Amino acid sequence: MPEWRKDPVVDRWVVISTERSKRPSNFKVTEERIKGQVCSLCPGREHETPPEVLSFREQGTRRDNPGWWVRVVPNKFPAVSAEAAPEVYNKGIYAAMDGLGAHEVVIESPDHVDNLDVEDDRQIEEILWAWRDRLLSLRQDKRMKYIQIFKNFGETAGASLEHTHSQIVAIPMVPHDITLEMEGAKKYTENTGRCIFCDMIASEIQQRERMIMQRERFVTLAPFASRFPFETWVMPVKHQHDFAGITKEEAVELSSMLRCLLVKMALLLHKPPYNMVLHNSTVNLPDTSYYHWRLEVLPRLTVIAGFELGTGLYINPTPPELAAKCLSEC
Amino acid sequence: MPEWRKDPVVDRWVVISTERSKRPSNFKVTEERIKGQVCSLCPGREHETPPEVLSFREQGTRRDNPGWWVRVVPNKFPAVSAEAAPEVYNKGIYAAMDGLGAHEVVIESPDHVDNLDVEDDRQIEEILWAWRDRLLSLRQDKRMKYIQIFKNFGETAGASLEHTHSQIVAIPMVPHDITLEMEGAKKYTENTGRCIFCDMIASEIQQRERMIMQRERFVTLAPFASRFPFETWVMPVKHQHDFAGITKEEAVELSSMLRCLLVKMALLLHKPPYNMVLHNSTVNLPDTSYYHWRLEVLPRLTVIAGFELGTGLYINPTPPELAAKCLSEC
Repeated sequence: MPEWRKDPVVDRWVVISTERSKRPSNFKVTEERIKGQVCSLCPGREHETPPEVLSFREQGTRRDNPGWWVRVVPNKFPAVSAEAAPEVYNKGIYAAMDGLGAHEVVIESPDHVDNLDVEDDRQIEEILWAWRDRLLSLRQDKRMKYIQIFKNFGETAGASLEHTHSQIVAIPMVPHDITLEMEGAKKYTENTGRCIFCDMIASEIQQRERMIMQRERFVTLAPFASRFPFETWVMPVKHQHDFAGITKEEAVELSSMLRCLLVKMALLLHKPPYNMVLHNSTVNLPDTSYYHWRLEVLPRLTVIAGFELGTGLYINPTPPELAAKCLSEC
Repeated sequence: MPEWRKDPVVDRWVVISTERSKRPSNFKVTEERIKGQVCSLCPGREHETPPEVLSFREQGTRRDNPGWWVRVVPNKFPAVSAEAAPEVYNKGIYAAMDGLGAHEVVIESPDHVDNLDVEDDRQIEEILWAWRDRLLSLRQDKRMKYIQIFKNFGETAGASLEHTHSQIVAIPMVPHDITLEMEGAKKYTENTGRCIFCDMIASEIQQRERMIMQRERFVTLAPFASRFPFETWVMPVKHQHDFAGITKEEAVELSSMLRCLLVKMALLLHKPPYNMVLHNSTVNLPDTSYYHWRLEVLPRLTVIAGFELGTGLYINPTPPELAAKCLSEC
């Protein structure tokens, strides 16, 4: 019997196939392989990108020149622009606004490699720190209300550049999906005095059936109402609403856990295309301390098709309990 | 300057790239080509599907035998099941329900063809009529609250069978996305006494810049806040909240317009993968007459990636005004 499951924070149901459960070997994955050797994100070609907004680099090297190990640049083809007004205007019966926002690319390695699983913990830690620095910097523009950090790996997951990179988009409104999540979390805190995500983590640590990795500061688990096969969430154990609040010690443990998860996925699912998505609290808005950030890793093994586009609901052929078992044993 | 645009019914913003607008020739499409010659949906192999729940067939032919031109069968691998209870139960701190629902396949032709654009108007009319009949039949199960009719064409859009078909999924809850749409429409009607979709159609007929086709009973347009390049909506001009209320005369005009749209898309965009999604009012719930149904055709020329999955917002590189111009001139 398939099962409907409800996300505990937002009003979103998923169908989990519990009978014909799809195991890793049931998915046809064309393993992502690196094609190029050098590209415009590689060292020595810094002039082919807009000037950097941040880099971690060797002492004595000059900006927009080699010597960096992480480099952040504005997107050459940005979806949104900082030179715009935040006013909503009418277009006939509709509402519109200039395409205000910021769009940056985090070049995650000077080497022309295609994924994070080949990096060492130290390099991933530096990437996380670059995310943190840009989160803090971009919110200085008080017009911005949400900052989305994400990574697309593989063409199926939307990557158009092969060189390993993530993206940051700052926007002047809170997306409705995030509003719902914030409201769900807030309501729970108002009713119970506790954080819904902290309670979820406590329950999962006790239950164990969806737990993939547990360390002192972070857990990796398959969420109860997983939308995608092998969907995983990495969450801080201690309540923390804002990713930008992580300490160096936390970044060390998080980078090690994240690398471990990506290596497991590459081994188990043959380097599948995936999206990595940070869910973080809003910025430049009143108190959001009831929120609890997480990093979602979403392998793209199924297609978002007509049913999902029509309803916003998902059909997931792999129970998260099975996904957690495979990933934790891998 | 890119532009943020807000959907007039739900709180969903999209970014429209107005500078580097992508024209049809800017999309890399691998034209879908038919591979097989015969399959389990073809006549003569009716025993390979579950017994039919509806067929339009020649007089004197027997059910589950050849002689049909449209045939509807339960999905052999259903995502949901009718033999389930509609009660929500607790699983630890979470809520779940048996996988109640119905999942059917509409076999849209006895010929092993892969798309509707090769069919004639009369055949499409019969398919629309089968949709209507199943909408009326499935709502007899009072546990069902929403019925999603959709079509996936091409692997990228989620089609796993090549033989032209659509799918119907009846579910025991109203998806949150549909709740939002219904609430948006209801609020507008309460405030103005009018239908928001009727007002939208009137405005688009007057403005013309997003209109693709206009006939007596139906219009085809590119919506103001299009999420996807060449997204199109087919809508009844006269207010109608429920697709199942269409008359024979309406089905005749709708089938002709729909075929025309699919032929235009095939010519302009080289048989792109697409999803077709019916947005219809809920069933077995109090008065929903303020709603206005539509049929969405969503070519899959861009990838739903990390930004979209994280925020629920979309970046659309083709302004709907350009899409409408290309499609109406084609």
